[in-house]
Amino acid sequence: MATFDETKAIWKAADAVCFDVDSTVVTDEGIDELAKFCGVGEKVAELTRNAMNGTVTFRDTLKARLGIIKPSKQHLMDFIEAHPPSLTNGIRELVKTLQSRGTKVYLVTGGFLSIVSEVAKELGIPTENIFANKLKFYFNGDFAGFDEDQPTSASGGKPKVVQMLKKKYGYKNLVMVGDGSTDMEACPPADAFIGFGGNQVRPKVQENAKWFATNFQELISVLKE
Amino acid sequence: MATFDETKAIWKAADAVCFDVDSTVVTDEGIDELAKFCGVGEKVAELTRNAMNGTVTFRDTLKARLGIIKPSKQHLMDFIEAHPPSLTNGIRELVKTLQSRGTKVYLVTGGFLSIVSEVAKELGIPTENIFANKLKFYFNGDFAGFDEDQPTSASGGKPKVVQMLKKKYGYKNLVMVGDGSTDMEACPPADAFIGFGGNQVRPKVQENAKWFATNFQELISVLKE
Repeated sequence: MATFDETKAIWKAADAVCFDVDSTVVTDEGIDELAKFCGVGEKVAELTRNAMNGTVTFRDTLKARLGIIKPSKQHLMDFIEAHPPSLTNGIRELVKTLQSRGTKVYLVTGGFLSIVSEVAKELGIPTENIFANKLKFYFNGDFAGFDEDQPTSASGGKPKVVQMLKKKYGYKNLVMVGDGSTDMEACPPADAFIGFGGNQVRPKVQENAKWFATNFQELISVLKE
Repeated sequence: MATFDETKAIWKAADAVCFDVDSTVVTDEGIDELAKFCGVGEKVAELTRNAMNGTVTFRDTLKARLGIIKPSKQHLMDFIEAHPPSLTNGIRELVKTLQSRGTKVYLVTGGFLSIVSEVAKELGIPTENIFANKLKFYFNGDFAGFDEDQPTSASGGKPKVVQMLKKKYGYKNLVMVGDGSTDMEACPPADAFIGFGGNQVRPKVQENAKWFATNFQELISVLKE
């Protein structure tokens, strides 16, 4: 992983930035909020904490959490209506600044496309720049699982997406930004990683990230230096 | 398998009857009609013929056919609206006759619950008496596969359903009625099998069924003897 100065230089020259979503671009964890909305908040929050700390495989906790929530399509629609994206301070300006410089912005998340699409809409990020998990429903709207073929549904999924983007578009300075250990794991192949502690501080990330930012102004300022 | 006379006796004493749906209870094959509706009729009809003749595994052809059709939820809804069940002559009276004697009537089919539910409604068969395949959709309504855990999605699925029904409800005279070799396969565990050739004659079934009926009046008459 690049040093702090190298990370800063790569950030200033970034041709692509991949943002994690939950606790990074938005202040909360979508799946926890959905679980609360469905009345199983506490049970699911515990499993999410385990996932974040990387003590169990991501797909297993995803399966376990969804097995508890069992969100129907109606649940999702009601949740999305009741729960507009809670954007982190500064993310709107940061995304705008990056895009106006020609930097491509992606959302790469273990969260759900149906929820993250609302975040992307708010930020002016095109749908095809979202890499997220996809829920499935039966004809009557009942929960029917998730797309296990999505790379983001597995541990090691974020590195895979970053690798693919670098290969497909030839990005030379791709930066991953996120709060969690699964974000840090994406560097390499990402050229640099910025740990984000503005919503949640994950000790493992704080300790190991060469650049650990606690607000997005810090990142905007460096772009404007 | 019971002889013709034994089959007749079991039919008269039936405590449960499992009907196949496509080309038995209805005149056509639901998946072929859906494929036509989605503009890929000829390609899919060929795969259905192979499935019926039992030369490839059912799950493989189901996967292959759905991979061609890729029906969205909207496709399904439009199809259901445009295409009310085409009931086979006599099936309405036959189901009514059976139910009025206290015989339980089931639909056991490799077709899709969303389509077969309409058939069941027409015939007064409760939803919980349907064993069928379940399509899956993404949040945006795109096709997302089918429930591979349903017994009816695999070869040998109909025998499994019949076995389960016999065990759960203790049926002593369960009769399977259908046009295809996958229906004949369900006997045993079914106590008797009646081949139905009113819509399609499958040579293998015509040759091997102890009772091969070409219309439902024949079955009604025996019940009324």
